[in-house]
Amino acid sequence: MASETAGKTITCRAAVAWEAKKPLSIETVEVAPPKEHEVRIKILYTGVCHTDAYTLDGHDPEGAFPIILGHEGGGVVESVGPGVTEVQPGDHVIPLYVPQCRECKFCKNPKTNLCQKIRITQGQGFMPDGTSRFTCKGKPVLHFMGVSAFSEYTVVADISVVKVPKAAPLSKVCLLGCGISTGYGAVLKTCKVESGSTVGVWGLGAVGLAVIMGAKAAGASKIIGIDVNEKKFESAKQFGATECLNPKNHELPIQQVLVDMLDGGFDYTFECIGNVNTMRAALESSHKGWGKSCIIGVAGAGQEISTRPFMLVTGRSWTGSAFGGWKSRDDVPKLVDDYLNGKLKVDEFVTHTFPLTEINKAFDVMHAGDSLRSVVTVAEQ
Amino acid sequence: MASETAGKTITCRAAVAWEAKKPLSIETVEVAPPKEHEVRIKILYTGVCHTDAYTLDGHDPEGAFPIILGHEGGGVVESVGPGVTEVQPGDHVIPLYVPQCRECKFCKNPKTNLCQKIRITQGQGFMPDGTSRFTCKGKPVLHFMGVSAFSEYTVVADISVVKVPKAAPLSKVCLLGCGISTGYGAVLKTCKVESGSTVGVWGLGAVGLAVIMGAKAAGASKIIGIDVNEKKFESAKQFGATECLNPKNHELPIQQVLVDMLDGGFDYTFECIGNVNTMRAALESSHKGWGKSCIIGVAGAGQEISTRPFMLVTGRSWTGSAFGGWKSRDDVPKLVDDYLNGKLKVDEFVTHTFPLTEINKAFDVMHAGDSLRSVVTVAEQ
Repeated sequence: MASETAGKTITCRAAVAWEAKKPLSIETVEVAPPKEHEVRIKILYTGVCHTDAYTLDGHDPEGAFPIILGHEGGGVVESVGPGVTEVQPGDHVIPLYVPQCRECKFCKNPKTNLCQKIRITQGQGFMPDGTSRFTCKGKPVLHFMGVSAFSEYTVVADISVVKVPKAAPLSKVCLLGCGISTGYGAVLKTCKVESGSTVGVWGLGAVGLAVIMGAKAAGASKIIGIDVNEKKFESAKQFGATECLNPKNHELPIQQVLVDMLDGGFDYTFECIGNVNTMRAALESSHKGWGKSCIIGVAGAGQEISTRPFMLVTGRSWTGSAFGGWKSRDDVPKLVDDYLNGKLKVDEFVTHTFPLTEINKAFDVMHAGDSLRSVVTVAEQ
Repeated sequence: MASETAGKTITCRAAVAWEAKKPLSIETVEVAPPKEHEVRIKILYTGVCHTDAYTLDGHDPEGAFPIILGHEGGGVVESVGPGVTEVQPGDHVIPLYVPQCRECKFCKNPKTNLCQKIRITQGQGFMPDGTSRFTCKGKPVLHFMGVSAFSEYTVVADISVVKVPKAAPLSKVCLLGCGISTGYGAVLKTCKVESGSTVGVWGLGAVGLAVIMGAKAAGASKIIGIDVNEKKFESAKQFGATECLNPKNHELPIQQVLVDMLDGGFDYTFECIGNVNTMRAALESSHKGWGKSCIIGVAGAGQEISTRPFMLVTGRSWTGSAFGGWKSRDDVPKLVDDYLNGKLKVDEFVTHTFPLTEINKAFDVMHAGDSLRSVVTVAEQ
């Protein structure tokens, strides 16, 4: 399926972040053709994630502007550059903010998914050759997390994209590009939670619910959701939480309450907020001797976690997970299959949908704590 | 082998700690007979460990006095109370500050060795029935860590003692009651270091050398010892360190130096000092994606460890080890066998020996950093 636009610059719409703390602006942008080992994708749908807001709100000290945000996309390959072998025009794909080159020492190590092949240029907002494919009003615009899904067309490295079956609706499985996979994998891949375990989950947004879903899939005997927003308890229970509690309803520090309630604490705890105080509470609520606490949330720049070392010497361990530990190109297609086979919920996360022109509303409902995930229709199929 | 003293109070010598920050005092003490599930041991030899000094120096906020310290002992069973089945008079034994009851949920869990059966009374300085077997000058004297090896006779719970072969010299294998087992096990049992791994060791005292010995046994490809006291480098190399370095010789923070030197950091790091700053350095010197850092040292009361959560989210994990993770009654006899088979060095740790009357000198050489381990002859065989 040859594309009429292959090899040519495409002019299209994108939501551009011109500067921090300002709403996104729908602009006409130019998207250059993919170079060697690059893929140009027509983005049909994208989720809106806290990491997009984190950068837009200026919390990322390395965040530079102007930039096209978005990293939970789903789309169709428009054209490919030389040397691309694993996808071709017309393929349905999910772009991946964690690439998988299969060559670097991280890719070759089964303990990690954090491919470092293009880390530096990706962090700078560039393609692997150190340049951008986007321009707007004559200025270059930066890429975001190697994805930039808030544009009708984007260009990504070929190690940052994976083909998915056409049977999977992109309006849903785009969410497997970040939050759902992250929480679900932290349980099943990073921590390998055993059947019968007790699990505590701090933060009941999309990532926390995905943790709950993973804990249920692992056969956890108790899954307790912890959040100060009690509006979130009902959906947590629908996803599998056996109980929910609000730390504000307790006078004692929540770790003390939970250690008592669970006869020593949880086998596993997960922090899905990005708050260094709840990270400590989650660690200290894990069980002496074997408790494992996993940080998923991203804390503000410069913030630090603390605890007494005695907590670790007496057998707890403190770890973290990024993109759920999944080796992205290997594992995302399996997650899509699990979704198609009914093992993994995705539809249930979509609480709001917006057209690209109303993308700022997706940020508003996220900040209000009212949404799980908003899916934005970026381009018409 | 019946004992003439069985059932009677024994009057003998012990080194009593009357109060914090004062030298031990050699006193005549009375040792009551063992009650149900208790064992009275004639202690022949004992090591002197930093944990003894920690309490004697008043750093343990829960440390109470008067007390008979010592927890690296070796001796012969003098008599047993009712219900004791696993040891009998005449057996050579090592008392265990980490008991193993085989019944509590900790003992039943393969992930931990921290039997909690008698934790509370042991922490209070009492036998499991809440009383002491020691008196001196008419006053009760506390037990220490369930062992109190600085007395010619002591009484311990039957879950806190294990028989060892008579072929094993107690003047050496007494050290398997703490430091050597702790460092060796942190590598082999707690962290299960793989062949080919790179290992960093902070603190080159007895525990650090035992870590090096464990890393060598595991087949580590690089073992780097880190200490500010360069006098310790030679013995570290004899135990298997491939390199040693002094952080004071570097202007940059040592974690930065090491991450560069090791192309990303160590696969495993071990902190054997008890300093919260080196604990942080050890974590931050471990490799992104898979580095594991294990705290063995005991920090001062109230001190806290800190780091940026990003360190954990990007795949490092922070854990700890007590008594090397060994299930004490199951595993200490295996360590004694390894010593007898030449797999595990013990003799090389003994740098000083003293009679009981000169036990304070063992503390002096330890504080001066000149000793690995002093072995004190407590009672004549």
